[in-house]
Amino acid sequence: MKKQFIGKQSISFSEPVSILEHCSIVGKKEGEGPLADCFDLICEDPMFGTTSWESAESTMQKETAQMLLVKAGLAKEQIRLIFSGDLLAQTIASSFGIMDLEIPVFGLYGACSTMGEALSLGAMSIAGGYADYVISITSSHFGSAEKEFRFPLEYGNQRPLSATWTVTGCGACLLAPCGGSAVITGVTVGKIVDFGLKDSLNMGGCMAPAACDTIYQNLMDFNRMPEDYDRIFTGDLGSVGQTILLDLMKEKGFDISKQHEDCGLLIYNAKAQDTHAGGSGCGCSASVFSSWILPRVMSGELRRILFVPTGALLSKVSFNEGQSIPGIAQAVVVEHIPS
Amino acid sequence: MKKQFIGKQSISFSEPVSILEHCSIVGKKEGEGPLADCFDLICEDPMFGTTSWESAESTMQKETAQMLLVKAGLAKEQIRLIFSGDLLAQTIASSFGIMDLEIPVFGLYGACSTMGEALSLGAMSIAGGYADYVISITSSHFGSAEKEFRFPLEYGNQRPLSATWTVTGCGACLLAPCGGSAVITGVTVGKIVDFGLKDSLNMGGCMAPAACDTIYQNLMDFNRMPEDYDRIFTGDLGSVGQTILLDLMKEKGFDISKQHEDCGLLIYNAKAQDTHAGGSGCGCSASVFSSWILPRVMSGELRRILFVPTGALLSKVSFNEGQSIPGIAQAVVVEHIPS
Repeated sequence: MKKQFIGKQSISFSEPVSILEHCSIVGKKEGEGPLADCFDLICEDPMFGTTSWESAESTMQKETAQMLLVKAGLAKEQIRLIFSGDLLAQTIASSFGIMDLEIPVFGLYGACSTMGEALSLGAMSIAGGYADYVISITSSHFGSAEKEFRFPLEYGNQRPLSATWTVTGCGACLLAPCGGSAVITGVTVGKIVDFGLKDSLNMGGCMAPAACDTIYQNLMDFNRMPEDYDRIFTGDLGSVGQTILLDLMKEKGFDISKQHEDCGLLIYNAKAQDTHAGGSGCGCSASVFSSWILPRVMSGELRRILFVPTGALLSKVSFNEGQSIPGIAQAVVVEHIPS
Repeated sequence: MKKQFIGKQSISFSEPVSILEHCSIVGKKEGEGPLADCFDLICEDPMFGTTSWESAESTMQKETAQMLLVKAGLAKEQIRLIFSGDLLAQTIASSFGIMDLEIPVFGLYGACSTMGEALSLGAMSIAGGYADYVISITSSHFGSAEKEFRFPLEYGNQRPLSATWTVTGCGACLLAPCGGSAVITGVTVGKIVDFGLKDSLNMGGCMAPAACDTIYQNLMDFNRMPEDYDRIFTGDLGSVGQTILLDLMKEKGFDISKQHEDCGLLIYNAKAQDTHAGGSGCGCSASVFSSWILPRVMSGELRRILFVPTGALLSKVSFNEGQSIPGIAQAVVVEHIPS
């Protein structure tokens, strides 16, 4: 077998993997933000026609996958593998969401970094010759996430300004060996990084060190400078995490302030929508990537970007037991090619 | 890229992937069962020297990975990727367990099927040329699982005879492109299968249809008969699930009663140890594979086996909301080669 790994933590595909199609479905609040025109569907009903937050998220994920298939003109039987994940305990949003598709599945958990993981493993599957079509899909839902990690919505608790707002959204991509004008050329697999922070209402701070670690390693492994990327998109650091990331990268000798954008800062108008530090969740980076970033790579407006979803590896049990909140970040290099 | 997929759901590696080394650590009860002599370490302290069930499981997973490295004579820096998972919400046993190893990680969730998923993706990574050394590792712990899914241990609730006993155990394998006398030659990726069962104290019944689906598809895709395998090992169907699996396979025209064994039935002496239907958990199939199955493949006593860990895709939220318990099974073909 031909060696495709480079540096310490990265893979450089000898044959780039195409992202053929993309789809995103979001909730009402996301549909009132600056990216409103980019999403495939904005659902006004937060319950998505169901009776529980979990079923709502599952339905959103199922409909996103189905709409992706329609957009691509493929039948579900043509999809060889699906990589999916979400934030809920035992990833039930995904299990119940994609079940009816009857596609062979690998379930993932990487907290809010899961779309990076799903795209990485999806691309590895295509480039390894293990599949002709792969779907990478992740979701989050404000209602199910608040129930899973924080307080009942009815309690109406106050949130500090460092807190982020979990995006109700799902993003999905269709990967294939060739075709289209956006390709994945490499990935950098993240390590778990723990700075010992314990504040679950400042996830950006908890995840920024992991984002720095993965971005720095990507630059080292591929022997690149920040300006080799038109943009470096993190997942959901928000305004607090962004400041920390830029500082940490400067300490390592890199100024990425010109390239850096954060999906959590792109999806809402933070002041007008009262979302504090920005958006978060598996569905934040996934829906922004599938609605806003990818079309700009496909059009050639962005020639090469680094997509770095970030995850905070806590549960309510680990938090309540006084454990720290380690972070992880998974990076994917996406480039434009003339189609 | 060379096509390596065959049939509907399977991958046949053009260059088989070696399993170089294995390691297992289990708890006291598992150390009193029939496989006592096979485990690398039996820990008498259910808390593994910590103060919480979750930390106990993390410690067990960390020590298993470290012992695997010692057995293989490798430093952690030599491991390119780790695929890990467990049963806890947000897979915290794995995150906190493997964090200190500082190895790039892909977190998985496939319930008790996770070791099949970890071995599949690990083998795909090696055969794709994405890594030279990969660790696949999963764990479960009786105390943390009861807390996560059932009742506080202090409550002393009674269990029906269809219930299984979550194994306190961890199994880990080291994969590499060549060397050793056991290789992974193929995998069959499982679909989610839902027969509508809702009894969380009869997980074997919930998972048997998925096991049948994956085993049947494996036989179809590879054009094999049951006797082409010396053994077909499911993960944790237990006695109830085994009966259902054998019946379902007969309906599909295959009698696998001569080949079938279940890790959950191998690990305990069910009557003497009062474990009812058998053992279960991510750590059940992982520890039995790493302690008992793999050495027999390495020695040549077993020439070709199918390892099929089975998972029940529920959470306490989905269960309490009245949802069914879908199942999934991931199959790995392991063969002996003269070393």
